[in-house]
Amino acid sequence: MTGPDLEQLLADAVGLAEEAGPIANGYFRRRLDVHDKTRGAGFDPVTVADREVERFLRAELTRRYPGYGILGEEEGRQDADASRCWVVDPIDGTRAFITGMPAWGILLGLTENGTPRLGVMHQPHTGETFSGAPGLGATLRHQGKDVPLETRDGVRIGEAALYCTHPDLFDDAREREAFARVSRAARMTRFGGDCYAYCLLALGQVDLVIEASLEPYDIVPLIPIIEAAGGIVSDGRGGSAASGGFVVAAGSEALHEEALRLLALS
Amino acid sequence: MTGPDLEQLLADAVGLAEEAGPIANGYFRRRLDVHDKTRGAGFDPVTVADREVERFLRAELTRRYPGYGILGEEEGRQDADASRCWVVDPIDGTRAFITGMPAWGILLGLTENGTPRLGVMHQPHTGETFSGAPGLGATLRHQGKDVPLETRDGVRIGEAALYCTHPDLFDDAREREAFARVSRAARMTRFGGDCYAYCLLALGQVDLVIEASLEPYDIVPLIPIIEAAGGIVSDGRGGSAASGGFVVAAGSEALHEEALRLLALS
Repeated sequence: MTGPDLEQLLADAVGLAEEAGPIANGYFRRRLDVHDKTRGAGFDPVTVADREVERFLRAELTRRYPGYGILGEEEGRQDADASRCWVVDPIDGTRAFITGMPAWGILLGLTENGTPRLGVMHQPHTGETFSGAPGLGATLRHQGKDVPLETRDGVRIGEAALYCTHPDLFDDAREREAFARVSRAARMTRFGGDCYAYCLLALGQVDLVIEASLEPYDIVPLIPIIEAAGGIVSDGRGGSAASGGFVVAAGSEALHEEALRLLALS
Repeated sequence: MTGPDLEQLLADAVGLAEEAGPIANGYFRRRLDVHDKTRGAGFDPVTVADREVERFLRAELTRRYPGYGILGEEEGRQDADASRCWVVDPIDGTRAFITGMPAWGILLGLTENGTPRLGVMHQPHTGETFSGAPGLGATLRHQGKDVPLETRDGVRIGEAALYCTHPDLFDDAREREAFARVSRAARMTRFGGDCYAYCLLALGQVDLVIEASLEPYDIVPLIPIIEAAGGIVSDGRGGSAASGGFVVAAGSEALHEEALRLLALS
């Protein structure tokens, strides 16, 4: 890489996500006007908080990193041809956010030529920041203490704790059946994790997260955290998860292989 | 009531639940030996933390309140014929606990002749305590600040946020179909809330919680919090929820009626 090194970029990303925390948190558990982006075709809430956090992060990233691209949930892509691109999900887990559940997070990641290089998830209500970059390790900062993140190894599918934000995420019967096969084989399945579930996987508390219908900004910032903690993230066929869609995250390579075999989506 | 008044009992219960917090939190996100109470027939984790928290609360309650009954998850009932009975769920949401998700809580309630009179939910990782007693109001204490709890009023089913810990909680096809009818009518359904979801209802962020297969200690401590915040909790037919089983919690009487009508379990 040229320009600022990865360590500096990661420290900056952590700082920026934490600076954005109070903006989001100021709207958390307040009565909000929830706009319906899909105009009645469904329920896709966009809050004032979403837009304000993205505006703050875009302004800071543009100022500090001229020439870098930015991909964000609310305002799309800018400088699409830049090799380094910041990826912003101002509030991942909007449904958690608008129901008061602290499983949402501010996500900020960086790709280089399409490969996720570093990522941050900040949860302002609990005061936690999960961050990582392959080669630099992964960390949870909570109440001023930094704890290294490490996935749980040696867990077979029959002992695995599986998370998924919602059973209705899956697009079609084939995906639903594939998920159900893994769910039946796992020790337990929990719904409702949002981005927090991926961070619990990095923390070695959860073994599998399987979801579908993700956007790139939903998953790109989480990939480096999980990889740096010893885990693995792919699409449903074992390829890159960086374009979103169907995503399989696992705490170890062996468990990831077991999950892919059961999913049988290749 | 005779003996200490409700206000004193509520203050004591809050203090005790918060004192028990560090015991539970000391085991949170540690690698645990998870015992299987059902010996292979299913997965019902009991952790060391569960037992230590209950032992602490039982010892304190027995010392401070001789003559009161105690009903707890781990050690059953003592002084079953007492008119006042403490109800203890040392760690409600064990699956949340063992996967690192802070949706679990220490529950402590008091019944008088079977009627829930006061309740406390303490979540040590987030540092939150939800408490309430009809007549005394309901409160969230967080970071040293007390905020009054008030459910959201005037929400029709089509605007409602519905929570349920897991879709597999329901015993049979009839209950599953009943839940599905409410879920389809609601604006959104979220899974994975555990006791935290009931507290979010008291906070006015969630409108409905519908679950089944609950034990009395899962719900009794939450009933007074919700009622004191303006909500209503019943079984699936509109009767008392104090014996657990199928439970419907709603932010308002009108919404509760709409939910019962859709459930059609009477």
